[in-house]
Amino acid sequence: MMQDIEHLVIIGTGLIGGSVALALRKAGVAKRITGVGRRLENLQLAVKLGVIDDYSLDIGAAVTQADMVLVSVPVAASASVFQAMAATLPANAVVTDAGSSKQSVMAAANQYLPNPNRFVPAHPIAGTEESGAAAAFSELFEAHWCILTPDLHTDAEALERVHALWTVTGSKVIEMDAATHDEQLAAVSHLPHMAAFALVNAVRKSGGADPFQFAAGGFRDFTRIASSSPEMWRDIALCNRPALTLKLDALITELGVLRRAVDGGDTDLLLKEFSQARKARDSWLLKHGDAL
Amino acid sequence: MMQDIEHLVIIGTGLIGGSVALALRKAGVAKRITGVGRRLENLQLAVKLGVIDDYSLDIGAAVTQADMVLVSVPVAASASVFQAMAATLPANAVVTDAGSSKQSVMAAANQYLPNPNRFVPAHPIAGTEESGAAAAFSELFEAHWCILTPDLHTDAEALERVHALWTVTGSKVIEMDAATHDEQLAAVSHLPHMAAFALVNAVRKSGGADPFQFAAGGFRDFTRIASSSPEMWRDIALCNRPALTLKLDALITELGVLRRAVDGGDTDLLLKEFSQARKARDSWLLKHGDAL
Repeated sequence: MMQDIEHLVIIGTGLIGGSVALALRKAGVAKRITGVGRRLENLQLAVKLGVIDDYSLDIGAAVTQADMVLVSVPVAASASVFQAMAATLPANAVVTDAGSSKQSVMAAANQYLPNPNRFVPAHPIAGTEESGAAAAFSELFEAHWCILTPDLHTDAEALERVHALWTVTGSKVIEMDAATHDEQLAAVSHLPHMAAFALVNAVRKSGGADPFQFAAGGFRDFTRIASSSPEMWRDIALCNRPALTLKLDALITELGVLRRAVDGGDTDLLLKEFSQARKARDSWLLKHGDAL
Repeated sequence: MMQDIEHLVIIGTGLIGGSVALALRKAGVAKRITGVGRRLENLQLAVKLGVIDDYSLDIGAAVTQADMVLVSVPVAASASVFQAMAATLPANAVVTDAGSSKQSVMAAANQYLPNPNRFVPAHPIAGTEESGAAAAFSELFEAHWCILTPDLHTDAEALERVHALWTVTGSKVIEMDAATHDEQLAAVSHLPHMAAFALVNAVRKSGGADPFQFAAGGFRDFTRIASSSPEMWRDIALCNRPALTLKLDALITELGVLRRAVDGGDTDLLLKEFSQARKARDSWLLKHGDAL
């Protein structure tokens, strides 16, 4: 059983923050939920929709009585949010987040939070193409992974409370070190976005009146993530620089292998590379596809 | 109005060949349709489903009375099919195909067909993940592009008949030179497949107990085409070698740009690259999305 949250403050009351609020409300484990954001209309809407009880535009003022704070802002904004709450955050408050890279957020927490040992980094792997409180729904996290990346200094009680919080949302909670998280997510999430953006740019520059004219369903699916927010992906890429750089190198290497095989007419190598890729993807779908 | 086809012979009675048969039947423009294939059960099923009137396992025997032949086999098999029909094909018969690269098919036609000027290369840009005659349906081509790539030697009457045939299927028929076709399709179709296979291989080799564990919806969509047939894509890649090699180079270049921007923390360049990609994709979807 999860210990009740007396006052949850959610910095960033969008899809993720709002969905956490709704899930905790549904479970009846949060007595008061305050939303903080920069857009007044979104916060007013969030109250109207029953996502939060009340709101504030001022991070420092909002957290003074919080026992739990969820920071769900674009990952590059984490440092400034920690800075804004540092002076007024109660010493016993627990802080968690929802950022998609973890080492950079932990470095920011260590730099700005008065008790970084009560910060428990989290990455719920869930989302839709929608944003804002209006898009929030209590089932968003169900059956999705939520990765916690505590380190040696993380307070055990804080970890337990954050573990319980994300479990209540329906997430499959798992713990690992931040470097492993950043490397794995660079591979399966950040790298595909880079590849989709790069591919669209390669086609765009390939000339002709309309180089996209004959693109079809495969292209549409492959490049869907190239319609993601450029600002958000710039931030994610820069917050996970070392890991993502290595993954980009790995992809360039693999493309070089195929390039040489195509150019040289290496039938066997192409069949081997394609077959191994298909086998790996199909195995993954078989094992984890239900949770997508 | 389309001139009736007295005897249409379809070499390869799968999704594409079968769907052409059903569309022509529906329009009432083909008096007799014979299917040719290697799998007896598929041909028997095609007769049972009303896709074809009769069948043969022998290409040379099947075409002796044909006035129209559709070759819808994997593109690498085109040459051997042309070879098999060369001796018995009536001089006035018109031949078309459905291969996804055109220069290689035209070279094969020039080499093996007795009257290559009556061969009109076609590429209907349509398909599903299914295969076989059982997957065929008459609306497959509706609102999809069908690209014809005649050259200076193509017979005008043969071109007109093939143009009419594909128009009757519901395709938006367009003509261009084969080199332009191969370059454009390398960019929007063959390259994404290479990238999807390469990305899965990069992740596969990235180590850890299960490098795919945290892959989510974006990864699934991005890599969907990596579950395509390795044999088919090996053949397509090798049939479009020069164009695809250039496109692979272009993608590697674009990934290199992003790699340097990520590594160097070049905020402005990343935002510019991502924004241009999103804009290009969104414009394409707005313009052509309805036809997907």
